[in-house]
Amino acid sequence: MRNILIIGAGRSASSLIEYLLNKSETENLHITIGDLSAELAQRKTKGHPRASAITFDIFDENQRKEEISKADVVISMLPAHLHYEVAKDCITYKKHMVTASYISPAMQDLDEQVKANNLIFMNEIGLDPGIDHMSAMKIIEDIRDKGGKVLLFESFCGGLVAPESDNNLWNYKFTWNPRNVVLAGQGGAAKFIQEGTYKYIPYNKLFRRTEFMDVEGYGRFEGYANRDSLKYRSIYGLDDALTLYRGTLRRVGYSKSWNMFIQLGMTDDTYVMEDSENMSYREFTNSFLPYHPTDSVELKLRHILKIDHDDIQWDKLVELDLFDDTKIVGLRDATPAQILEKILSDKWTLNQDDKDMIVMYHKIGYVLDGHQQQIDATMVCIGDDQTYTAMAKTVGLPVAMAALQILNGNITTPGVQLPINREVYLPILKELEEFGVVFNEKHVPYMGYNPNNVAS
Amino acid sequence: MRNILIIGAGRSASSLIEYLLNKSETENLHITIGDLSAELAQRKTKGHPRASAITFDIFDENQRKEEISKADVVISMLPAHLHYEVAKDCITYKKHMVTASYISPAMQDLDEQVKANNLIFMNEIGLDPGIDHMSAMKIIEDIRDKGGKVLLFESFCGGLVAPESDNNLWNYKFTWNPRNVVLAGQGGAAKFIQEGTYKYIPYNKLFRRTEFMDVEGYGRFEGYANRDSLKYRSIYGLDDALTLYRGTLRRVGYSKSWNMFIQLGMTDDTYVMEDSENMSYREFTNSFLPYHPTDSVELKLRHILKIDHDDIQWDKLVELDLFDDTKIVGLRDATPAQILEKILSDKWTLNQDDKDMIVMYHKIGYVLDGHQQQIDATMVCIGDDQTYTAMAKTVGLPVAMAALQILNGNITTPGVQLPINREVYLPILKELEEFGVVFNEKHVPYMGYNPNNVAS
Repeated sequence: MRNILIIGAGRSASSLIEYLLNKSETENLHITIGDLSAELAQRKTKGHPRASAITFDIFDENQRKEEISKADVVISMLPAHLHYEVAKDCITYKKHMVTASYISPAMQDLDEQVKANNLIFMNEIGLDPGIDHMSAMKIIEDIRDKGGKVLLFESFCGGLVAPESDNNLWNYKFTWNPRNVVLAGQGGAAKFIQEGTYKYIPYNKLFRRTEFMDVEGYGRFEGYANRDSLKYRSIYGLDDALTLYRGTLRRVGYSKSWNMFIQLGMTDDTYVMEDSENMSYREFTNSFLPYHPTDSVELKLRHILKIDHDDIQWDKLVELDLFDDTKIVGLRDATPAQILEKILSDKWTLNQDDKDMIVMYHKIGYVLDGHQQQIDATMVCIGDDQTYTAMAKTVGLPVAMAALQILNGNITTPGVQLPINREVYLPILKELEEFGVVFNEKHVPYMGYNPNNVAS
Repeated sequence: MRNILIIGAGRSASSLIEYLLNKSETENLHITIGDLSAELAQRKTKGHPRASAITFDIFDENQRKEEISKADVVISMLPAHLHYEVAKDCITYKKHMVTASYISPAMQDLDEQVKANNLIFMNEIGLDPGIDHMSAMKIIEDIRDKGGKVLLFESFCGGLVAPESDNNLWNYKFTWNPRNVVLAGQGGAAKFIQEGTYKYIPYNKLFRRTEFMDVEGYGRFEGYANRDSLKYRSIYGLDDALTLYRGTLRRVGYSKSWNMFIQLGMTDDTYVMEDSENMSYREFTNSFLPYHPTDSVELKLRHILKIDHDDIQWDKLVELDLFDDTKIVGLRDATPAQILEKILSDKWTLNQDDKDMIVMYHKIGYVLDGHQQQIDATMVCIGDDQTYTAMAKTVGLPVAMAALQILNGNITTPGVQLPINREVYLPILKELEEFGVVFNEKHVPYMGYNPNNVAS
């Protein structure tokens, strides 16, 4: 029997655990699920005979070492900053490790030790990062094998609400960490490269410089730039590409509307508001508007944001109860961002029957045999329900598959790594298709941003 | 003979030193001027027999202790973060100390020791902070003495170029630290209180929510809000005031134009631009604009900032050579803010014959005997030349006067303090008038922001 230890049984672990339980007989696995909440861990076992649930405290060193020493592979679904403790013990006891998180500098520093022990520490093998790496690298390496050269790489991903549950004016609900949504784009200008020119977008313009794209059967989306589009330039082998752009997908109109919050100052997380606890939603809104003894909050806001009478932006604000003087914030010493998150959560929380949706879009332009061409690859995944969400599937399944591939000796390259090697991404992308994670690749004319090669 | 040690002989020390040299015979003073540059210190003595110049390194502990032990009062004109070392030695050797800087938490923590030694550590006695405290407290305490109650306190100050030297479209030149001008308003929302309502302005709107004010003989100015208008609320005894607002003065139109830099992202100091050294001013500008193979940088900028053909904003940008492709940045690994500072310095540096100007404006509304009234107090100070600038006079003279008052036993209250006590501000304000620093007080109708007391 091979032992898999899963640390963290939260939302993103549902599909992961389900997958491994389903394979446990044929693959001869025993699954140990550890979580601070024994009840949550127990529930996730579904009473399966090959699963056991334990209360697990990452800071209990004895327990951590003991459980890791008994495992053959360790999956950490903890928050990213907690992986390091697990990783050190995995080296001590010579265990493979899998996470869906970005490789931290501390994790990267373990590479030498990991290699010396012939271990595999697979990271960034969830959705984004994860499926984005794998699906992009598959196309990029296919192009290279044929002798082509990538000119343009754009990649977008978004966690959205499924069309059948899309019933508010923002076409958006929280399907993941709301705080990250509120703080999106903060902490530095977005940087990317377009036709060989470095471009920088400040936060206050970020949500106004979107680009549109269509996904067959799902209509139009828009993307705003991520902080650092150049992060994987060298890792993907794209140092010579003229255009590199990574972004986040939303439904059309979301970003322009979100920019209203930025313009007002409602996304600021750097200071605490006076008496936030007793503030009404209307007072919160009024805090960002000039004082006037008689003019309404409504008209002051319309004026400062230049919202015309017939502009749907207005209705989006009303839908959120931003002018309601009976709804109270109820948070002590809260920042504007925390208050905004509260207000949005009132309206953007998934209902019992709501489903989520993941959309990914790659555009890869290249030159092959003197011809410029482009592949657009899209993937849409809809959640089954509130447990087996699209997010849980796309984050958890690749993690589970990678753990099993490592156990079975199909992934052999040791080291701290992300899934950009063929031995990793080919079988996993193929298996993901059985679970509905399918990329639809289309050859389209290469446009780039300078199709006629005009000197700029 | 009484010994005054002045540490730091930079721009802001000129008038300070001149004042003390002029008083040195009648007051029986010896002035020691210490600076890292012995040549600079020597020049500032003007060969006066009662002055000596020394090379002074604040980090040379032996020298620091020796010089401080020989002084009767120590004036530190060092950057604010360096005062603490001086302050500790001043306690050891029981010397009074004067600075023009904000009281740091570390400095404040010395209060008990300073009091125990019956010493006076006078801080914030330059211009802003300094003359603003003194002139405001004089009016506020006058009102209180008559039984009045302050309802509104607004205070603005600006370092500008004198009308006779005001010859660019921005009506602005650097008269002090350019970096502070470029970074102004960053690092948190501006917070103030208006008619009892807390208001917050985010950085991206800060320079659009100015208010205008007129100064007799000098025309119209505009003010944008400082970060924290509530800082001195309790210190001034204004906890019950309905409106507290502190701001920075500029000539009309400056702020709206400055906002263009903010909107573009040019004031960002958080990241380094690629190949900044070899970038032309035009490339710098283009970095913040969308890519296009043929559209000009000019038209892209006009479009993104919505600048009409007949808008003077445009000419302000052209005046700065922002579209020049021959001028090169020449700074390695520079942030946008550093590059912008460089570009502005080309045009906004004072010429040999230029003079600077300090403008201060207080509005103090109050109720007395049931009547609402208001005093508007304005002060304008023009520099003599590039040495005895308005900035050097208004920062340095109060420091020098305070040092002498302390020596002469006219300031008696011990402790770490700022000049809000009558024994400090009355004689100094009076003496400043001899140097042209005169407040023009006018009684005007109280307007506030809600003159008819309408419920908001």
